[in-house]
Amino acid sequence: MFFASDNTSGVPAQVLAAITDANAGYATPYGNDTIMDRVRTRVREVFAAPDAAVYLVATGTAANSLSCAICCPPWGAVFCHETAHIHVDECGAPEFYMGGGKLVLVPGAHGKMTPDALATSIAGTGGSVHGVQPAMVSVTNVTEVGSVYTPAEIAALTAAAGDLPCHLDGARFANALVATGATAAEMTWKAGIDVVSFGGTKNGLMGAEAVVIFDPAKAWEFELRRKRAGHLFSKHRYLSAQFDAYLKDDLWLTLAAQANAAGKRLADGMARIAGVKLLHPVQANMIFAQWPAGTHARLQAAGAVYYDMPAPDGFEAARLVTSWSTTDSDVDGFLAALHA
Amino acid sequence: MFFASDNTSGVPAQVLAAITDANAGYATPYGNDTIMDRVRTRVREVFAAPDAAVYLVATGTAANSLSCAICCPPWGAVFCHETAHIHVDECGAPEFYMGGGKLVLVPGAHGKMTPDALATSIAGTGGSVHGVQPAMVSVTNVTEVGSVYTPAEIAALTAAAGDLPCHLDGARFANALVATGATAAEMTWKAGIDVVSFGGTKNGLMGAEAVVIFDPAKAWEFELRRKRAGHLFSKHRYLSAQFDAYLKDDLWLTLAAQANAAGKRLADGMARIAGVKLLHPVQANMIFAQWPAGTHARLQAAGAVYYDMPAPDGFEAARLVTSWSTTDSDVDGFLAALHA
Amino acid sequence: MFFASDNTSGVPAQVLAAITDANAGYATPYGNDTIMDRVRTRVREVFAAPDAAVYLVATGTAANSLSCAICCPPWGAVFCHETAHIHVDECGAPEFYMGGGKLVLVPGAHGKMTPDALATSIAGTGGSVHGVQPAMVSVTNVTEVGSVYTPAEIAALTAAAGDLPCHLDGARFANALVATGATAAEMTWKAGIDVVSFGGTKNGLMGAEAVVIFDPAKAWEFELRRKRAGHLFSKHRYLSAQFDAYLKDDLWLTLAAQANAAGKRLADGMARIAGVKLLHPVQANMIFAQWPAGTHARLQAAGAVYYDMPAPDGFEAARLVTSWSTTDSDVDGFLAALHA
Amino acid sequence: MFFASDNTSGVPAQVLAAITDANAGYATPYGNDTIMDRVRTRVREVFAAPDAAVYLVATGTAANSLSCAICCPPWGAVFCHETAHIHVDECGAPEFYMGGGKLVLVPGAHGKMTPDALATSIAGTGGSVHGVQPAMVSVTNVTEVGSVYTPAEIAALTAAAGDLPCHLDGARFANALVATGATAAEMTWKAGIDVVSFGGTKNGLMGAEAVVIFDPAKAWEFELRRKRAGHLFSKHRYLSAQFDAYLKDDLWLTLAAQANAAGKRLADGMARIAGVKLLHPVQANMIFAQWPAGTHARLQAAGAVYYDMPAPDGFEAARLVTSWSTTDSDVDGFLAALHA
Repeated sequence: MFFASDNTSGVPAQVLAAITDANAGYATPYGNDTIMDRVRTRVREVFAAPDAAVYLVATGTAANSLSCAICCPPWGAVFCHETAHIHVDECGAPEFYMGGGKLVLVPGAHGKMTPDALATSIAGTGGSVHGVQPAMVSVTNVTEVGSVYTPAEIAALTAAAGDLPCHLDGARFANALVATGATAAEMTWKAGIDVVSFGGTKNGLMGAEAVVIFDPAKAWEFELRRKRAGHLFSKHRYLSAQFDAYLKDDLWLTLAAQANAAGKRLADGMARIAGVKLLHPVQANMIFAQWPAGTHARLQAAGAVYYDMPAPDGFEAARLVTSWSTTDSDVDGFLAALHA
Repeated sequence: MFFASDNTSGVPAQVLAAITDANAGYATPYGNDTIMDRVRTRVREVFAAPDAAVYLVATGTAANSLSCAICCPPWGAVFCHETAHIHVDECGAPEFYMGGGKLVLVPGAHGKMTPDALATSIAGTGGSVHGVQPAMVSVTNVTEVGSVYTPAEIAALTAAAGDLPCHLDGARFANALVATGATAAEMTWKAGIDVVSFGGTKNGLMGAEAVVIFDPAKAWEFELRRKRAGHLFSKHRYLSAQFDAYLKDDLWLTLAAQANAAGKRLADGMARIAGVKLLHPVQANMIFAQWPAGTHARLQAAGAVYYDMPAPDGFEAARLVTSWSTTDSDVDGFLAALHA
Repeated sequence: MFFASDNTSGVPAQVLAAITDANAGYATPYGNDTIMDRVRTRVREVFAAPDAAVYLVATGTAANSLSCAICCPPWGAVFCHETAHIHVDECGAPEFYMGGGKLVLVPGAHGKMTPDALATSIAGTGGSVHGVQPAMVSVTNVTEVGSVYTPAEIAALTAAAGDLPCHLDGARFANALVATGATAAEMTWKAGIDVVSFGGTKNGLMGAEAVVIFDPAKAWEFELRRKRAGHLFSKHRYLSAQFDAYLKDDLWLTLAAQANAAGKRLADGMARIAGVKLLHPVQANMIFAQWPAGTHARLQAAGAVYYDMPAPDGFEAARLVTSWSTTDSDVDGFLAALHA
Repeated sequence: MFFASDNTSGVPAQVLAAITDANAGYATPYGNDTIMDRVRTRVREVFAAPDAAVYLVATGTAANSLSCAICCPPWGAVFCHETAHIHVDECGAPEFYMGGGKLVLVPGAHGKMTPDALATSIAGTGGSVHGVQPAMVSVTNVTEVGSVYTPAEIAALTAAAGDLPCHLDGARFANALVATGATAAEMTWKAGIDVVSFGGTKNGLMGAEAVVIFDPAKAWEFELRRKRAGHLFSKHRYLSAQFDAYLKDDLWLTLAAQANAAGKRLADGMARIAGVKLLHPVQANMIFAQWPAGTHARLQAAGAVYYDMPAPDGFEAARLVTSWSTTDSDVDGFLAALHA
């Protein structure tokens, strides 16, 4: 009953096997390994983007911060939702990588920016030398509260962004695709996205994220920034191998489907329990819920692990995240404990 | 006959096994995994430093740059040898992490700073608000040209550094210990070193380096800087597992001993070949050599892989690096081709 | 009828005379001029702070950004009102100087943070390595909308700030003192302020601001940061001379009294005109007002200069700022045009 | 007998008068004053560059650092002489402004880079993602040791620079023009220079430097960087007025001619005194000299002020700088004391 985060799960056997296979012999370092050639080709196929630049890094914060840095100058503004991971959970990494840019927080229910709120924020920024200049938009999908933008919703945001480059923080990109049935292309460049953090770690890898840049003119700058951030791996083959396994036979989508199914089973079960209230639409693998005070103690005694959240007096709240490795038994055990 | 770099080698079976073992079940993320508890304890034992702060990152550039950042303010000077990796091979990463500090290059034969040259550089820096201020010293051991400082030589440098904190770039730390017979403590804090980049990747890990900070007052700043650089791994257990295997039964020293032995066999063989000149003392696993023009073509035709280096007219030069996985057959094959 | 900003005014004769006097002969550069000795002493007297470090720079953005940089590390959060100049009008200068810190915006009516809102913001920030850490508070007095904090209100904010260092953006510090009758000490260190941007430019200087740091342990870092930002003047005597004249015979308070009196005359007059609404309490020299659509054209035709502000449909809004050089005739002319 | 630096001199009457004239009435702030319109036009005429972007800042460090920042990305290398002011005397300001770029030091006698040494440095930098990338060249004229590049020498350097943008640190630009008889255009864009720090402060202004950018595509970035560095003056008219007076009737060249003539008189006199050795060619207003130990005491007793420099045992060395305000009497008094 481990629902603390999808990053507490291990990796499936295919990933371990790929690591082991990759270990044989010598390999050219720094991203010039032959496995990476295959990954690059495969990512381009997945995104139907034959010219895209494709890079691997080991953490989502690196993927996001480097993406921001190639889109936003030091005097620029990044428009993102007020719950965005880049604002809340990266200890100022984007500002560090951008050399001091500013995140402008856009409100919106259930973790989603609305096109109107985004347009208003952009219109209210810049206009003279005295303020930071609108530079980019960053959209998180799956959002930080477990809701999911459809491709049409993404497209509406990128339309509101006008000429600004748009980044998709896809730490849970696979979960968003599974949730919507969209293709990777539909969710990204066809909807106006320019750069994607294509997550792997939260969905079954050890530590590997791809950055997909649809305009290859940005590629060399990305490579230099990655290097000087210490995110270019010498023994890169072990990152490549993870992504190679991830993409093979659509493992990435299979894993996300398992996580989302577990999320749905959990949410559906919780919705049926009196006194439990779901705080946001559960569209992928994250559940935010509120219940009467005193429930935490009972759940924890039963062995449930998750994050507490702030709640009104008399209530408790929680964030639960399912993953590819969540079992029906985990879910049902939790529901039984909650119901008791 | 793959001598391009020790980072082109794979990892030994023990490391793969540790990764596999670590994969079972759920683990607390972000460095709070139980394997890391063991690693922390073991590193402290290895360094005879029970209060040291111990952190893992995935690349040497991250280890070095974060080490510089906690020792040197944006207006500070880092004194290092003119061949130092932090100056030559990290695309300005230390400057990025420090927020604009300056590397002051200290000369010295065979990749080694002399205490006098270091003292002169320090004395010539700062002294008024108009220049950057002396802030730290960074010593590389094994040096970038394959020579090795003894603990006494390190101590002489840290004495010349006076009150400045001293960092050891130990990307090949194990090779330096094997070369000198020194203990980790003798090579570091007993010789006046304050922070160590304790390398693993070049010596048989996939991508894992420890940073050992003898003054734990710097620990929290390190953690924040690591996080905001994107170098805090969520699935940290896979870094921990690598280091756990590395330290178990002194595997790290065994691997380095193999690499150094191969380096010695290669150097000794080359020294016996007429027309081949070793450019620097070969004390660990790196050989810099010069030979007559035309030799490259013959060696490469025989399948040898290594880096070309600049050479005077009529000559060619090369850097060769051995690793834990270099075989006697690799070495002897190369010597045969060179001799031909 | 020039109400665009107090920075559109010239300087009084005393300042010109001081510049001329300072011009004689040679002077030691970089803040070591003898006039600065006098300024330093006089500022310490004004603030009743005999140990304070006192520095001059030429712009308010420099004063504020350097103040932030010595109080807030790159991973820190600066708590300020959502209208703060450091957030809205400095093009990200604080983030640049801090190396990427984050401004956390605190709400509050009429440009003022409330202690509760500040405490809530601080409590909601940091707490783990994943977010930026509470680092400092910056209070603006006179606020950006023309209201004024009393010393008691400042003290309540610094109490809410707990151990965090507190900065006062006093671009209109003299106006705030005149408005409240407080002494410089009462408005600053006695109320818990640690660093002050003591403005001169908006109140009759050409371009000179003092930074007053009550804890002299921060002085050397400030000097180095000022130098490396290009804000250490070689011919510093011309900055010193401005501040010398400013402080002599309380010229600074006299000038602010004139500006505030003009502001009051203007506000009082506007309040008597039907259809004109003052949007914020007018406590110093800034007036924010709303009036019926069509009024701008009439005022501008009459020669009035000020900034338009956003307004609801059917209305217009304006910001007007008076200065030491605003005349009764300017004010009365404006009121006549507005009334017409 | 004040030869410490040209920045210890005051300003001529014309500059004071211009400041006084500029003080009348209200002026649009932030560089939009009408005097600046005149300055902009006049600078373009002086440089025969009708499209040049022209900006004013108050310090040479600001001019140089902003110039570097618009030419060199954070991962770039600036090639400059090892004595360059940007390396030695700005406390790392260029690195701060560039976000961590690296200065690569080029050797050369008498403060001058040679084209060959520059080409070698450039060729040895970059070439892979592991090192910083060649980004720009910065040439100082007058050099830091008082020698002067001719336009042909500048052109040879910019040719060696290939496609890299070239900056001229002209803190003593007027002195260089007077020394060579070149026009501003010949010394800059006709010789391949892209951006100029056109100094005023060392040559008779209070604190004003122009930055002249021949490619106006860089202008907006410069404006934003200037603003967020706190170098955009609200009461900009007082900077404009200084430059307006400076350019009127070629005052700037007259002042530099006086400084250079004094320098020549001083150097010629020193060269005739036995035991005094000039260390560098004296081509403008700076003299570096060596003399027997014990001389300092005698000169200082006579009231001479200058900087000591390191010297071999048995000798002393000094830097002396003349300015527009140096009198024949100052020079002759010094020579008499030196001769005694």
